[in-house]
Amino acid sequence: MKELTNDYLEEAIEDSRPYAASGKVNLSLPGYDETIKDDLRVSIITTNGSCFSAGNNNRYIPMQSTSKIIGLMLALQDFGKNRVFQTVGMEPMGDFFNSISQLESYDTSKPFNPMINAGAIAVSALIKGKNVENRFNRYMDFLRKITNNDHLKMSKEVYEAEKSNGARNRSLAYFMQSTGTLVADAEEALDLYFRMNSVMMCCHDFARVGLFLAKGGLDLETDEKLIPSHHLRTVKAIMMSSGMYNSSGHYAVEAGFPCKSGVSGSIIGSIPGRMGIGVIGPAIDEKGNSTAGGALIKKLSQDLELNMFGVDYTDRRRADGVG
Amino acid sequence: MKELTNDYLEEAIEDSRPYAASGKVNLSLPGYDETIKDDLRVSIITTNGSCFSAGNNNRYIPMQSTSKIIGLMLALQDFGKNRVFQTVGMEPMGDFFNSISQLESYDTSKPFNPMINAGAIAVSALIKGKNVENRFNRYMDFLRKITNNDHLKMSKEVYEAEKSNGARNRSLAYFMQSTGTLVADAEEALDLYFRMNSVMMCCHDFARVGLFLAKGGLDLETDEKLIPSHHLRTVKAIMMSSGMYNSSGHYAVEAGFPCKSGVSGSIIGSIPGRMGIGVIGPAIDEKGNSTAGGALIKKLSQDLELNMFGVDYTDRRRADGVG
Amino acid sequence: MKELTNDYLEEAIEDSRPYAASGKVNLSLPGYDETIKDDLRVSIITTNGSCFSAGNNNRYIPMQSTSKIIGLMLALQDFGKNRVFQTVGMEPMGDFFNSISQLESYDTSKPFNPMINAGAIAVSALIKGKNVENRFNRYMDFLRKITNNDHLKMSKEVYEAEKSNGARNRSLAYFMQSTGTLVADAEEALDLYFRMNSVMMCCHDFARVGLFLAKGGLDLETDEKLIPSHHLRTVKAIMMSSGMYNSSGHYAVEAGFPCKSGVSGSIIGSIPGRMGIGVIGPAIDEKGNSTAGGALIKKLSQDLELNMFGVDYTDRRRADGVG
Amino acid sequence: MKELTNDYLEEAIEDSRPYAASGKVNLSLPGYDETIKDDLRVSIITTNGSCFSAGNNNRYIPMQSTSKIIGLMLALQDFGKNRVFQTVGMEPMGDFFNSISQLESYDTSKPFNPMINAGAIAVSALIKGKNVENRFNRYMDFLRKITNNDHLKMSKEVYEAEKSNGARNRSLAYFMQSTGTLVADAEEALDLYFRMNSVMMCCHDFARVGLFLAKGGLDLETDEKLIPSHHLRTVKAIMMSSGMYNSSGHYAVEAGFPCKSGVSGSIIGSIPGRMGIGVIGPAIDEKGNSTAGGALIKKLSQDLELNMFGVDYTDRRRADGVG
Repeated sequence: MKELTNDYLEEAIEDSRPYAASGKVNLSLPGYDETIKDDLRVSIITTNGSCFSAGNNNRYIPMQSTSKIIGLMLALQDFGKNRVFQTVGMEPMGDFFNSISQLESYDTSKPFNPMINAGAIAVSALIKGKNVENRFNRYMDFLRKITNNDHLKMSKEVYEAEKSNGARNRSLAYFMQSTGTLVADAEEALDLYFRMNSVMMCCHDFARVGLFLAKGGLDLETDEKLIPSHHLRTVKAIMMSSGMYNSSGHYAVEAGFPCKSGVSGSIIGSIPGRMGIGVIGPAIDEKGNSTAGGALIKKLSQDLELNMFGVDYTDRRRADGVG
Repeated sequence: MKELTNDYLEEAIEDSRPYAASGKVNLSLPGYDETIKDDLRVSIITTNGSCFSAGNNNRYIPMQSTSKIIGLMLALQDFGKNRVFQTVGMEPMGDFFNSISQLESYDTSKPFNPMINAGAIAVSALIKGKNVENRFNRYMDFLRKITNNDHLKMSKEVYEAEKSNGARNRSLAYFMQSTGTLVADAEEALDLYFRMNSVMMCCHDFARVGLFLAKGGLDLETDEKLIPSHHLRTVKAIMMSSGMYNSSGHYAVEAGFPCKSGVSGSIIGSIPGRMGIGVIGPAIDEKGNSTAGGALIKKLSQDLELNMFGVDYTDRRRADGVG
Repeated sequence: MKELTNDYLEEAIEDSRPYAASGKVNLSLPGYDETIKDDLRVSIITTNGSCFSAGNNNRYIPMQSTSKIIGLMLALQDFGKNRVFQTVGMEPMGDFFNSISQLESYDTSKPFNPMINAGAIAVSALIKGKNVENRFNRYMDFLRKITNNDHLKMSKEVYEAEKSNGARNRSLAYFMQSTGTLVADAEEALDLYFRMNSVMMCCHDFARVGLFLAKGGLDLETDEKLIPSHHLRTVKAIMMSSGMYNSSGHYAVEAGFPCKSGVSGSIIGSIPGRMGIGVIGPAIDEKGNSTAGGALIKKLSQDLELNMFGVDYTDRRRADGVG
Repeated sequence: MKELTNDYLEEAIEDSRPYAASGKVNLSLPGYDETIKDDLRVSIITTNGSCFSAGNNNRYIPMQSTSKIIGLMLALQDFGKNRVFQTVGMEPMGDFFNSISQLESYDTSKPFNPMINAGAIAVSALIKGKNVENRFNRYMDFLRKITNNDHLKMSKEVYEAEKSNGARNRSLAYFMQSTGTLVADAEEALDLYFRMNSVMMCCHDFARVGLFLAKGGLDLETDEKLIPSHHLRTVKAIMMSSGMYNSSGHYAVEAGFPCKSGVSGSIIGSIPGRMGIGVIGPAIDEKGNSTAGGALIKKLSQDLELNMFGVDYTDRRRADGVG
């Protein structure tokens, strides 16, 4: 087991960076081009407050699918577990994140889980508020508290790109409207969904989200309990089985802790009771996960013994100075 | 948090037993009939060796799908992780355990994971030995060591029933033979698979398997390391995402630890570093999981704080006298 | 073989009317309610110009899916066979008319054929014109010539209903926009599609369309050739294999001539070289075909020996005074 | 319209032969290799008894899937239409001939139609007889009468190849056994199916089968009615919608008459009231149809005006000296 230091993280970054070569930058995102392909950055915050970071690309990128876990938390707050899971399932699905076939295959036309696009659109329709503006403001307030970062905001440019490239998500939303799965108007649900995906965060912010989940929902400033622990357990369990698109099983084996990725190349990792991890590596594989970022996550798991299925996992927590 | 005692377990059994009413006994299994529908039994063994048990139905039942985790361990031993996962995937699948469509849907015709029937048949073909007899003997030797029970044996009656009801599994095996996924002759692979499913175990044996995984692969008598820890982490991660048929996501949320069920009504639970759990409740739901047994597993998770996604999970281990 | 007379048709109507009981009226269509459930009407026009009719419900109803064959003819005129079938296939599909899974299952995401909703939406995008208004006007001009009925027009009420119930078709259109299958903007393609479905026709008009196909594309007034015969052969072949939703195979066997149905309860039949048939029976089965109308079509085939797979089919044409 | 002569057929053969280049010879069939790739032969017999033929490869080849129409005729004779279509559907299916997913997708697990492998296996189980030997003898008797060729027999070599390459068909049969669709033992149904596929016929024999269907089921020697006309209409309708694998829609449009192909490169065409066509061209496309043979079929349709959807089709019959 290696010691968690900034120097160690620099080494880990350099070991993982070559994996960027096998990925592709998502050129549909504003500001994303080949020049950032090899970028790789990591931030780690432990539950006792120590911060570590390494790598380049210290900039703000769109949340993309990492917004799905924030939306799920808010919907669980607003409607409770029973109501949320009447609308969306909690089962992993062996198919691509934008699959529509599954909606048709099952009688209920319930999306498999909140981590796939259809599921997240259905969940976003459950966030309370009198209109899209208001509901998005609630999302931002919650996110700013979680990350302790009042400066977070949506990129209009990304939002416009989301909207104009949104035909597939529109197809999903209208399908769910036709079956009654979607409780809101399709265009409104999509509007909120596109906004949520377009919020810009830096690597430290992603780590903060992971930490919030790892530490049990406390406001990092005030230690106020923002959301009950059982909701966070639910979110982490779903991240474990479905958070890394249709490589989630692979990451459950190779990383062994809850993660959520986005096609902007971000990954949020959360190790209960120990730490939150944020990773940014823009080159993604065909399933949507950062190639260098994924390699880094697996390396961290091994070197820092973060795998929750390890027998001695519980002892390691003390080792990183937490327990 | 409740204290783990025999009295507590008796209470938990009586709380969970009514859920048997919503299930059905699998009448295709020899000896299974309506008279055993309300049976429910649990055994727990902690990593420091304490044993607890409660309930009725203290008898031997067929392993059925719980054999899948034993077969996977043996194949990992024999061929290593890379080779095994060339033949079978590690991704959860949102479909029934005997689905054949998925084999046709994907280019590779690789079964999604080793916990579904197709995957387990493909994996059983990887257990080394010069013939079926010999390969099955290796399976039994390994299982007897894991459970520390030399008396385990296969039921010929169950085996005959498996064979004569085996058309769906035959269909899966021949499909995989036609695509080259199956490395052995279909009938031989099936023969071994049917035998493995037909081994009889009692509740304590199931708990022993869970403990073996929880404690890191040590022979319970000699403390000899029978299998590397990293293979056990792999098995537990796959149990978490795929062990409870297509309710695996539900159990990841509601139990929060690796489980594997069988249509005989058995469930093996494994809480890393803490304990192994065996449950027998013959009434199963439409997905194949024991209804009363599943309710019990979820109750135990809550009362004993076994959910690995809980922030304080690591502290609970000490509470049950282990850490 | 029975003689084709109005009296015969009255008998055939009364024989078929009881089948209405097993169907349901499509209540989402304006003016459709239980009071019209038992309505049944037929019109037949032979290629030598004789007209026959019987039954009640002599009123105008929305074309619904029968518009698909008009749209296909116009697209074939505008772009030719090669171009049209680059966008849509010509293979029958064993699934419901509004299926979206098939778009995802195949690499090309080409709709199976122009008789299913996705295919018809894609085809409507191929009708030339500078805007939706203009393209729809061309459709109406063509339809009025075919039916020799200058009074045909769209129902605004039906069009509004189509639009407000159009979520499933929107889902199909946006899916095809996301894959590039749709050559027009999704909302524009849908607008034209909804208008086409909302044109009102009477039973005689439906028969006229069947006759147009049966007689080789001649303007009924002027004998001017409106469309090449080979395009009409294509349309009739596709009606035979795909015109009756996923009962098309059944109708190929039991009727044996090209038909196209709509969920308004209309059926257009076309017997090459012999006659066109129009049927209206508002009670439809779960696949979308008129139950009484379908029974009538099968009865006519048998009594008048209209089955094209019959050995003596070619002789029958003379029998009805045509050849 | 061209005149049907041997000289014309020689020209048509030479025009179509180049299409062999885009196909592949099915090397799993005994005696099939690259040397026969460019072979192409045609036989035509009109309903008034005239015979025409051209091309090379005048030898016996295995029936393969063309046996499916013989098996269907016999099952219809033995059990009637209602019973047969309780076991198998009559709907075309937009998928490959050996698809197993469709069996799982629909509640009934009824194969879509008798022209796909699953459907033909289920139908072969309906051919009466006290054992496989006896049932196959009935098949041979019927086939010899239809073709007026007492010398037809099964190739043991092909039969052995069918059996040893039969894993996919075994998978289909066992699946249908598991759902109760198959009324016979899977191995027995397969044995008969493999035998039927292994009967050797020459081009003239294939044309005779087409003629038998075209002429209404008369014994070509005695004019005895061997099977009711309505059964033949059923078979021809199903050939039209499903006889050319998942190119059936294409052939309905481009040929416009009932055809059935086999992966040995054979095609049987039947033009009701006019003629039977046999074609042999061993190079097949990815869907299983002879590439040069298919091109020839389409050319014959155009040149001889065989398209049944043509308005003047009924007049053409007289032109070839039949009517």
